[in-house]
Amino acid sequence: MRIPFENIASTLTRILSARGMPAQQAQLCARLFAETDRDGVYTHGVNRFPRFVRMIDAGGIDIHAAPTPSVRLPSLERWNGHRGPGNLNAWACMDRAIEIAREHGIGCVALSNTTHWMRGGTYGWQAADAGMIGVCWTNTLPNLPPWGDTDPRLGNNPLVIAVPRESGHVVLDMAMSQFSYGSLAAYRQRGEMLPVDGGFDVDGNLTRDPGAIERSQRPLPVGYWKGSGLSLVLDMIAAMMAGGLATNQIPQDPEREIGICQMFLALNAAAFPAAAEIAKSVIASLGSTRYPGERVLRVREENLTLGIPVDDATWDEILRIAELSKAT
Amino acid sequence: MRIPFENIASTLTRILSARGMPAQQAQLCARLFAETDRDGVYTHGVNRFPRFVRMIDAGGIDIHAAPTPSVRLPSLERWNGHRGPGNLNAWACMDRAIEIAREHGIGCVALSNTTHWMRGGTYGWQAADAGMIGVCWTNTLPNLPPWGDTDPRLGNNPLVIAVPRESGHVVLDMAMSQFSYGSLAAYRQRGEMLPVDGGFDVDGNLTRDPGAIERSQRPLPVGYWKGSGLSLVLDMIAAMMAGGLATNQIPQDPEREIGICQMFLALNAAAFPAAAEIAKSVIASLGSTRYPGERVLRVREENLTLGIPVDDATWDEILRIAELSKAT
Repeated sequence: MRIPFENIASTLTRILSARGMPAQQAQLCARLFAETDRDGVYTHGVNRFPRFVRMIDAGGIDIHAAPTPSVRLPSLERWNGHRGPGNLNAWACMDRAIEIAREHGIGCVALSNTTHWMRGGTYGWQAADAGMIGVCWTNTLPNLPPWGDTDPRLGNNPLVIAVPRESGHVVLDMAMSQFSYGSLAAYRQRGEMLPVDGGFDVDGNLTRDPGAIERSQRPLPVGYWKGSGLSLVLDMIAAMMAGGLATNQIPQDPEREIGICQMFLALNAAAFPAAAEIAKSVIASLGSTRYPGERVLRVREENLTLGIPVDDATWDEILRIAELSKAT
Repeated sequence: MRIPFENIASTLTRILSARGMPAQQAQLCARLFAETDRDGVYTHGVNRFPRFVRMIDAGGIDIHAAPTPSVRLPSLERWNGHRGPGNLNAWACMDRAIEIAREHGIGCVALSNTTHWMRGGTYGWQAADAGMIGVCWTNTLPNLPPWGDTDPRLGNNPLVIAVPRESGHVVLDMAMSQFSYGSLAAYRQRGEMLPVDGGFDVDGNLTRDPGAIERSQRPLPVGYWKGSGLSLVLDMIAAMMAGGLATNQIPQDPEREIGICQMFLALNAAAFPAAAEIAKSVIASLGSTRYPGERVLRVREENLTLGIPVDDATWDEILRIAELSKAT
């Protein structure tokens, strides 16, 4: 079904407020969930809200926590997320990186002890909307075998790189596995094979069969040995600079994926007026080739006009949670 | 044949000095070429020196130029490379990024108007040797079709990420194509197929045949659409922040690949004593899985002891250039 944006945002806000989350935080947290679906990223938005609430109710996510700085160097800062809501922590840290970049040209915040940020692209759009180049990444629970290995020793550590552009930002939001588990499930449910090899089957052969990869739990790092190496260094940098947990120390259960580390960088592209012209001409040189983030503005407009497509079962579950929240 | 490190370095220094390059610059430039082969990266070292000399003699590379800053923000600086030797420009800019990071936690230098930096990993090792996390990348001439396209509108824009570690740095040095043209040629000469798909043949089919990809000039972006997007944003950021040419503006002839842009970032990991412990434990968690840069220290020791393997024809050509340089 299609639900109006404001309906989603207010429903999620009520659920969070009922749990005692301060009003302003509840509104922002709900808005970031709803905006993810508004932008067409249905794998990382309201579909994850029920798990988010379970993690709050189980005490894993602390809705009263707010991130605090522990070191200022001064263009690079270290913050502690105190196990607060991952999207609010990430939003606050990118905001701070932007603030530093306005003053110093570049700003970096390394965040420890946080929780899942949901859609990484959110913080890329946030930076680009402020005229900044934004770069951020997160480590994750171990869910990706390194190239040449069968055990999930690496995380899929999504990397976001956003470039501001007047007629639509370029926002790359890529996990270090060629296909996410969500994407594998979607292909399987549609009865489709993957367009390219996506992992190994249980016998160790490369395969395009999404179900075979779900069974083996051996998705392929993007670019084989290259994505494997990239995932490793992203994890190391986040943990080292934030002073927190590395992927190998994070529990493999998604509902206990707590204490992760993230990096937020902003570069003040707005300080260079000619930069906008360069962004424009590079995209023009692509001709009809699509660029990352291209379809977002179109989908956003459509979803704001027609309502946001939400899976029936998910919306029913959210309404049930809202009803129960009212009762308590 | 195997040539002692000092012999290579002094021979290249003589050739550069004979052309009027100042002594200190000639020594560093020659050393960076020789160290590349010393570390086993035979595709980006002395084998490229003859072309480098041709580009100096043709006036494309200006051996009297030194990079200069044009903007200080202050943690992010913009420098102009004035078409100077690419490895010296890159070395100077990473050096400056390290200096800024020592003072501000993070430092960034965006360099325009430079020339090929040869081995990107050089500047990663440079940062890591200084206790810094180093990140750098370059744009290049158009040599990579975007995913879904057949024309080379993107560069293979190598990205380097280096993490300092006491018993051997972790240094990722990855081009945005799954295999470089140098690597394709090496597979073909050995009569081997690639271990995974490396590009398209002239009929547009994915193939492991290196010769077929050389003929089609359609290597595959690392991770298909993902590397295609990553290559694009790296080019945009470098050109926008440095205020220089983007890939689509760079001539497609390697001997005229002049005026490119590069980014150099350093993060002061040494400011956090616990970071070294985290680096150690992450690598330990990999077990027997190899990490990027692992074999460098072993190869380096072997090559310093036994001499550095240099292709006979390449060394003959360099000796011939040295002989001619003496005469002029």
